[in-house]
Amino acid sequence: MSLDTIYESVREGLSQVEARLKTLSEVGPPWLAELLAHSLGAGGKRVRPALVLLSGSFYHYDPARLLPMATAIEVLHTATLVHDDAIDHSPLRRSRPTVNKVWGEDKAILLGDYLLAQAEELASEAQDLRVVRLFARAIMSVAQGELGQAFSAFNPEQTREQYLARIAAKTASLTTLATESGAILSRAPQAATNALKDYGYNLGIAFQIIDDILDFIGDEAEMGKPTGSDLSEGTLTLPAMLVLERYPDDNPVRRLFRGEGDRRENLRLALELVTGSGVLEECYQAARDYSARAVANLEFLPDIPAKSSLTELARYLVARRK
Amino acid sequence: MSLDTIYESVREGLSQVEARLKTLSEVGPPWLAELLAHSLGAGGKRVRPALVLLSGSFYHYDPARLLPMATAIEVLHTATLVHDDAIDHSPLRRSRPTVNKVWGEDKAILLGDYLLAQAEELASEAQDLRVVRLFARAIMSVAQGELGQAFSAFNPEQTREQYLARIAAKTASLTTLATESGAILSRAPQAATNALKDYGYNLGIAFQIIDDILDFIGDEAEMGKPTGSDLSEGTLTLPAMLVLERYPDDNPVRRLFRGEGDRRENLRLALELVTGSGVLEECYQAARDYSARAVANLEFLPDIPAKSSLTELARYLVARRK
Repeated sequence: MSLDTIYESVREGLSQVEARLKTLSEVGPPWLAELLAHSLGAGGKRVRPALVLLSGSFYHYDPARLLPMATAIEVLHTATLVHDDAIDHSPLRRSRPTVNKVWGEDKAILLGDYLLAQAEELASEAQDLRVVRLFARAIMSVAQGELGQAFSAFNPEQTREQYLARIAAKTASLTTLATESGAILSRAPQAATNALKDYGYNLGIAFQIIDDILDFIGDEAEMGKPTGSDLSEGTLTLPAMLVLERYPDDNPVRRLFRGEGDRRENLRLALELVTGSGVLEECYQAARDYSARAVANLEFLPDIPAKSSLTELARYLVARRK
Repeated sequence: MSLDTIYESVREGLSQVEARLKTLSEVGPPWLAELLAHSLGAGGKRVRPALVLLSGSFYHYDPARLLPMATAIEVLHTATLVHDDAIDHSPLRRSRPTVNKVWGEDKAILLGDYLLAQAEELASEAQDLRVVRLFARAIMSVAQGELGQAFSAFNPEQTREQYLARIAAKTASLTTLATESGAILSRAPQAATNALKDYGYNLGIAFQIIDDILDFIGDEAEMGKPTGSDLSEGTLTLPAMLVLERYPDDNPVRRLFRGEGDRRENLRLALELVTGSGVLEECYQAARDYSARAVANLEFLPDIPAKSSLTELARYLVARRK
């Protein structure tokens, strides 16, 4: 099933989100409009706005509140990508030059700040202080998750619990924000809000595990970034972590992180070990487990088209190739 | 008059802000707490929180709303300093090593994001969606002002209007936010809110002009940064702008910005020209004019101690030496 088919029941809402994103990038002096169009117009799967709209479909679907929130979360996601790319000095994102590559890291930092605040302003349009607060807390989580990743860079001694906490903070916090705020803004009963919130969490974890797998096996052209980026940057993700568990003694991942021996050769051997040792199947199984938990969270929600969409989305995201 | 004396009527509130700032830096894992304590505990004049509390004193002084907002704006100010220092690769701030110097620019970017979101969360505690929206718009202004500065770096052809627009965006937007939100949260009548908002704007412009003067004449030890930083970074401020107007032909500022001749020699000559040509007196006069306008904005407000404090603060800030 394609994303277009999955998004069918909120297609109208999603195109209004696209239109709003376009309007947002037509403000200010030409240099600002150009930066905004470059970053907001870069496309992507628009998973987070779809999650807001789908989660907001079960009770009182209220476009005046849900559309600003759906737009807000995509702008927030864009802001985090702009800062991530500046931090990693990445030249490419979705096969296009990054803001830091074209305009420099100073402007990427400032554009990210502008987008973070633009996102908050949009979130405030949803007219719900509880949601505004969740929004701010989610940004704090993402930043804390990314900081945790930076502080643990090139450290081969990390536990699965630390990995889970990190991806919960940096990725699942936004998918949880999307589904929980969609529920709140449609005045869902508390039990349904909790169910959608848990769906968002489990989906986010599954999504990030797949992202971490694709970093090892994804097609460079399709991914728009080189294979093995995480390891190169010293980020220990589940696949490399499992390789360290299986081969505790001599291990190219440990040598790479400790700077022992030839860097390129260690990276090549590490990639070979990750892709050839069967750990990826274990990672896929973990992602499928989280995806299944996400689907199970939906069990007692009303049977409406959005429920099938969320179910299909959970399956789609663990089967994706980019 | 000292700042302590000026802040007298809101002393209790300001110490609660300090206590809250301390609490905020005692959260999370040790590496996060250390970053927060380093950035939030760096001191400073606390002008912005004082502006919130003083502006909130004229009608219904409501600590439950004003204190979170006062704390929020100081956290926001800190976030912008952390990002500014990362952008400028500054080693020192208030004579202490910067976050980017100690922990690296990647962590400074992420800490700034965390603080921006922490500020938004605090602002939402004031329980007023209008204020939340003003808060987000002010951050957008600051980012746009800083971006404008980055895009006009090393450009000697800038007008006074452009300078004014830039400092309004990057500095006066926060002082305006402080006074306007203080007024709104204390349920001030609209005319009083407008008066306090205008006070905040004029004070912010005066404040930034003085900052730009001090960059040329401030004591390096007291300022905690080298003299002439702005020119070195290609930022054209009022003093250098006036020098360009007075000496339109051969001019070391223009040569410095165009990269003609010896950089150090041009910088030395430019500093000499700024300090020796009387332009600084003109800049001081401009700052005093804005300060006087700020004081005039207070005219019809009730005669309470906070009114004298705001009056004295406007005078203090244009007479300060650091």
